[in-house]
Amino acid sequence: VIQFVTRMWMFLKKAWDLGVDDPRKLIHGLKLGVALMFVSFFYYMRPLYDGVGGSAIWAVMTVVLVFEYTVGGTLYKCLNRIFATFLAGFLALGIHWIASHSSHKFEPYIMGISIFVLASATTFSKFIPVVKARFEYGCTIFILTYSLVSLSGYRVDHLLNVAHERVSTIIIGTCLCIITSMLIFPIWAGSELHHLIPRNMDKIAKSLDCCVAEYFGHNDEESTKSLQGYKCVLNSKASEETMANFARWEPAHGNFNFRHPWKNYLKIGMSSRRCAYCIETLSSCFDSKNQVPESIKKHLESACMNLSISSSNVIKELATIVSTMTRSSVKINVVVEDMKNAVLELQNDLKSLPDLVIQPHDQKDKNEAILSDVTIMPLLEVIPMVSFASLLIEIASRIEEDMVN
Amino acid sequence: VIQFVTRMWMFLKKAWDLGVDDPRKLIHGLKLGVALMFVSFFYYMRPLYDGVGGSAIWAVMTVVLVFEYTVGGTLYKCLNRIFATFLAGFLALGIHWIASHSSHKFEPYIMGISIFVLASATTFSKFIPVVKARFEYGCTIFILTYSLVSLSGYRVDHLLNVAHERVSTIIIGTCLCIITSMLIFPIWAGSELHHLIPRNMDKIAKSLDCCVAEYFGHNDEESTKSLQGYKCVLNSKASEETMANFARWEPAHGNFNFRHPWKNYLKIGMSSRRCAYCIETLSSCFDSKNQVPESIKKHLESACMNLSISSSNVIKELATIVSTMTRSSVKINVVVEDMKNAVLELQNDLKSLPDLVIQPHDQKDKNEAILSDVTIMPLLEVIPMVSFASLLIEIASRIEEDMVN
Repeated sequence: VIQFVTRMWMFLKKAWDLGVDDPRKLIHGLKLGVALMFVSFFYYMRPLYDGVGGSAIWAVMTVVLVFEYTVGGTLYKCLNRIFATFLAGFLALGIHWIASHSSHKFEPYIMGISIFVLASATTFSKFIPVVKARFEYGCTIFILTYSLVSLSGYRVDHLLNVAHERVSTIIIGTCLCIITSMLIFPIWAGSELHHLIPRNMDKIAKSLDCCVAEYFGHNDEESTKSLQGYKCVLNSKASEETMANFARWEPAHGNFNFRHPWKNYLKIGMSSRRCAYCIETLSSCFDSKNQVPESIKKHLESACMNLSISSSNVIKELATIVSTMTRSSVKINVVVEDMKNAVLELQNDLKSLPDLVIQPHDQKDKNEAILSDVTIMPLLEVIPMVSFASLLIEIASRIEEDMVN
Repeated sequence: VIQFVTRMWMFLKKAWDLGVDDPRKLIHGLKLGVALMFVSFFYYMRPLYDGVGGSAIWAVMTVVLVFEYTVGGTLYKCLNRIFATFLAGFLALGIHWIASHSSHKFEPYIMGISIFVLASATTFSKFIPVVKARFEYGCTIFILTYSLVSLSGYRVDHLLNVAHERVSTIIIGTCLCIITSMLIFPIWAGSELHHLIPRNMDKIAKSLDCCVAEYFGHNDEESTKSLQGYKCVLNSKASEETMANFARWEPAHGNFNFRHPWKNYLKIGMSSRRCAYCIETLSSCFDSKNQVPESIKKHLESACMNLSISSSNVIKELATIVSTMTRSSVKINVVVEDMKNAVLELQNDLKSLPDLVIQPHDQKDKNEAILSDVTIMPLLEVIPMVSFASLLIEIASRIEEDMVN
């Protein structure tokens, strides 16, 4: 029992932390509560629904099923629900009309087969990527409404009534949802995405800085923590795409127009993921960092640090450009210039590396056999360092490519 | 109009290709159709539901909402739906009982506030990762059932009836879904995952091979195509996790017990993703491959090819081990030994690289200034090649680490 209590306590504590960490999640819960309360009032107050009982329930159901965290998500579900219900309702009425004009014997067969065919086709169409992204929920509701209306039609013979009631209650429910989600502390999928992308870019910039600093031994506890920042960028694709999908449904709000180019955010997200992949590879260089002789490390340290700092400056600057939505700034050109210079500097340092490596044999230079012996060793030791440096250069070039935007 | 027709045509063609490519998706659509037909028959046949009208509809709804592509997904939704309905039903009855024993005036307030509190709390709890993974659908259904039962209780005063009908129709619907999804061409999330992981590993192995082959100019059209294989591994995390989540709900089937260690698949998936990140970085070496002098390429070609072939052999062998579920095999040790030897070979070749690079000055060896001049140039040109090679070695070491399993 004690174990159970402690586990419950841990669970509650975790939930509390989550709420403190992001109070909007708590607010979302309260918003759903408010919307449900309103629907219930509707249910209590209206004498219109007296005796119908089962029908006003659709409004409650709509609220529970349709209410999403972001405005875009709610709108997507609402519009899908409304259009799918309309479409399915009309189709069911039409096919019922056809069926009722045929022999009475065939009626159930026609209805049954039409349900089978439509349900199968719609379910299959959910697998098509375009449909999946935009109309998945609508497909489910289409099947649902079609079967409900056509079944009630056969059974209770008040088909038009059922269709009309379902549509009107669903509209009441969706309107309530849209109003609540848009007026009370709205959480726009668009602005979420708009904040997520620069935040991820900043994380990458920090990771890059910390990674290089740690490689050269300038690490403290905090930097080890923010070094891991790139990891949450690695798998951000799915959430970014969902948000971009939801954002398309949202009306103009804040600085965003209706046809805001959400796709560009996905492109930027893709590029930052590519940088994150590189950093992932870069961070695996840590294993071999102790093999590199100190002298060589010292030789390249300043150039590497410079490059990483200027690269992360470019990323940070890009992040500000994205978050302020300015077309371009003077600063970015300066920073990119800086980065290019840093790349050249590092390349020069790499060029002068052989001098450094061969130095010991300059002093000897007596017999040929020793020469190759002396020069051989360093190169293998230099390799980890060299590949580290060339990864840095690769990151810089990836950043530059994505500058074209 | 013509444009619309061609677009429709393209859409249908795409759908057709999808169906031909993976007929199970088509079968899934048909299965839903069959299940819906059965429920409709139930609705037609039973005199039990005569006049209830609105209630048997729950069975239809359950089928439409609960039926998922995999058995695990269906079971997850079914069990969630049943338990959540039970729990919410009992809770609603209990609170209604308390409310009805208080003053009649307070009754609607008690019910309203309880709906608000429970709905808010449940919605918020959906954000907790554990709950989200296993009980998200259950939470929605809990809110839904609770509000439906408690609202009907206030309104129609046949609360017990509503609760009982809802539970029984939902059980009918879920049973039908479970039977259909498990007996007609079942698609187990577990075996999907079990096939997906080795397939991804094979893709990585092929990509690695093609990547190295292309680097050294042995490319044909087919290899360029399979070179891209690693890309779908990069973002496979979300789908793997969903499948593993669903697989936990599935009963024993085929070679899988009930408590099959699905988490290990996620670990293997993680490791193959790490290899994919490396290959992603590797593939960016193509841009600089033309800078490398032919002589050096030739020198390292055989060792690189060897290493890539032996690494991909290890991956392929691991894939077979995963898919046959043998604990370990003799062959794997041999292949890993091969890979280690290939790493050593490549390292030796890298070691002897300076000889090769410095060769020109061996013949001259007259003045010191030329020496540094001659040795400097090659190193910078060698760098892309060297980092390419060291990335290969890194991939090999990542593969080896994951051997611990």
